[in-house]
Parts: sequence; structure tokens; C-alpha cells
Amino acid sequence: MNEKTLKAIRGATCSANEKSEIAQKTVYLYDKLLAANGLTETDIVSLFFSLTADIDAINPASALRQSGRAGETAMMVLQEAAVQCSLPGTIRMLIHVYLASEQAVQHIYIHGAEKLRPEWEEST
Amino acid sequence: MNEKTLKAIRGATCSANEKSEIAQKTVYLYDKLLAANGLTETDIVSLFFSLTADIDAINPASALRQSGRAGETAMMVLQEAAVQCSLPGTIRMLIHVYLASEQAVQHIYIHGAEKLRPEWEEST
Amino acid sequence: MNEKTLKAIRGATCSANEKSEIAQKTVYLYDKLLAANGLTETDIVSLFFSLTADIDAINPASALRQSGRAGETAMMVLQEAAVQCSLPGTIRMLIHVYLASEQAVQHIYIHGAEKLRPEWEEST
Repeated sequence: MNEKTLKAIRGATCSANEKSEIAQKTVYLYDKLLAANGLTETDIVSLFFSLTADIDAINPASALRQSGRAGETAMMVLQEAAVQCSLPGTIRMLIHVYLASEQAVQHIYIHGAEKLRPEWEEST
Repeated sequence: MNEKTLKAIRGATCSANEKSEIAQKTVYLYDKLLAANGLTETDIVSLFFSLTADIDAINPASALRQSGRAGETAMMVLQEAAVQCSLPGTIRMLIHVYLASEQAVQHIYIHGAEKLRPEWEEST
Repeated sequence: MNEKTLKAIRGATCSANEKSEIAQKTVYLYDKLLAANGLTETDIVSLFFSLTADIDAINPASALRQSGRAGETAMMVLQEAAVQCSLPGTIRMLIHVYLASEQAVQHIYIHGAEKLRPEWEEST
């Protein structure tokens, strides 16, 4: 029997403050996080979002649900701390998930958010 | 031996920005979350709150402790992302907890917060 | 084989809004949390920070990484809820970590943050 361990996966993306773009970028990042880590939604324990203050046109958790995703997932949508000189227009995710103990997690930073963690930049 | 799995339970309630009502609504929601899911406080791993910006009269984690609850619980009290047209006066909770793997979680949305997740509306 | 359980450890510290002090206080608190609980970085599942609104000179997660710590850790840096009369200049942490089931956690409140949880005040 494979042993499973709780792990946390980070992702981030950038968007204009516009409903359809926020929804599209959120869904894209979410799908990429699940695919890159071989997850199904029922593996997810909790999903935390943060938004920079300039992103307020739509709630990304609502956008996920409206797309038919994450309907049963426990989510929180929080304000990113407003630190000077931080990257604007950024949507972050942290997913707590059970994975095989030996599986390495794949964090995803895309669409302008790569600069936050150049060492984690998408290599695939 | 029953296998336990980490799960996340969501709750939300609405309140006027008034100390005694925030305290009362917070305690009521917390007690309901524990009762509906058959939890005791020692089952809780962590408890996250978020507040909309119009709720600032008292810290709900302090209110819980002053009521004799959650004295040993690791809690965070965060700013809910200020999304346009979002429901005002809202206190949210996310509880990470160990439950029997086969147990379904009961999320609780009450006192005006039912409209956030009509599909999770209290049915008992 | 020792059984491990996910637990959450809280910490808090106070700082002036100045880059080097935020970095120093963050690293100090982080090191103390790890030492007091016998942790290594690879034990950490996720690390949540919150900042009061008057702390914005530098991102404490970046400061940790620049010090050579937490390079592979999934972190979020969130806005603490702006509750009236709350302690200013405060950096909070919540660490999710696997510990031996029987191990008690040591929360750390220092450098002015002791008053938040006098009952958890550092005793060692």
C-alpha cells in the first residue's frame, strides 16, 4: 500500500483586473497544477488563494466553481500582504494535497509570475 | 484501527460590526461546525479566519478564546480579499482537522452567509 | 515505526517597518520555531505569514529565502485582518508540520508579541 503524505503546492499567475481574464488565468493555472502533479480534485484537502489589491473584479474561487471545477473543495480567498515593490496583478494559490511520500511537487509560476520564483520556473 | 485523514471544513456567518455580535456569531458558528462534524477541539490542526474589511470591532479568535474555546488551537485571522460586489459583514472559517477517511464533512453557512454557497446550505 | 501527525505551530514577532529589522526578526523567529520544536526544513508542509498593514518594507518570505532558508518551502504572505486596537508592527507565522503524534508543540511569541498570547510566552 502506497503511503500518502500531505504536501503543499504553490502556483501564481498574473492578470489584468478584468473578469474574463481573471477567470481564464485562474482556471489555466489550476488545471496546470493538477496536471503537473497528477492530481484529481478529490486529492485536494484545501485551496488558498491570495490576490494583490489591484485584482478585485471577480473572485477566483467563484470563477473556478463556475467553470465546473472545485465544487466540493474547501477554499479561502485572502488579501496578499501589500509589500512595497511587489509584483502587481498577481493571483497566488497554495494547494494542500495528499501525494505519494516520494513524489516531488511541481510548483507553477506562469504568465508573468515566473519572476517571483525563477528557480521554480516551468521547465516542461 | 480507524484510518484518519486530514480534511478541511468551511464555514461562514454574517454580523454587524459590533463586538458582542461578532463574538456571539463566531462562537455559534464554531460550535455548530464542531457539532455537525462530531469534532472535539483536540481534533483541530489549524483554524483560519478571514474578515471582510467592514468587520474590525473585535478579533474573532480572541472572542473564541475569551469564551473558553480554542485555547490551545493554532489560529490565523486574515483579511478576506476585497472583491467587488462581495457579501459585506462576513466572517469565514476554514478548519483543518483529522477525520475518519470515509466521513463526509459538513460545511456550515448561516446567518446571511447561506447565499455564498447555496448548495452547501444547512439542511439539518 | 513512529507515527507522525500533522500539527500547526504559531509564532509572532514585532518589528519596525525597516528592511533589515524585518529580515532579522523573521529569521530569528523562524530559527527559534525550528529549534524549539526539533524541526528541519524538510519537515515543513506549508508556512503562512501575516503582516499588519504597517509592515510593508520587505516580504518576510523573500527575506527567509535570501538568508538561505526555506528555499523549497511552500509559503503564503497574507494581510492580517485590520482589527481595531490590535498590536501594530507584527509578523505572524503558522507552520504546518509533521511531528511525532505524542510531541507537544512549542509556539513562540517574542520581541513584543508576547502580549498576544501571555499563556504561550517563551519559558525556555
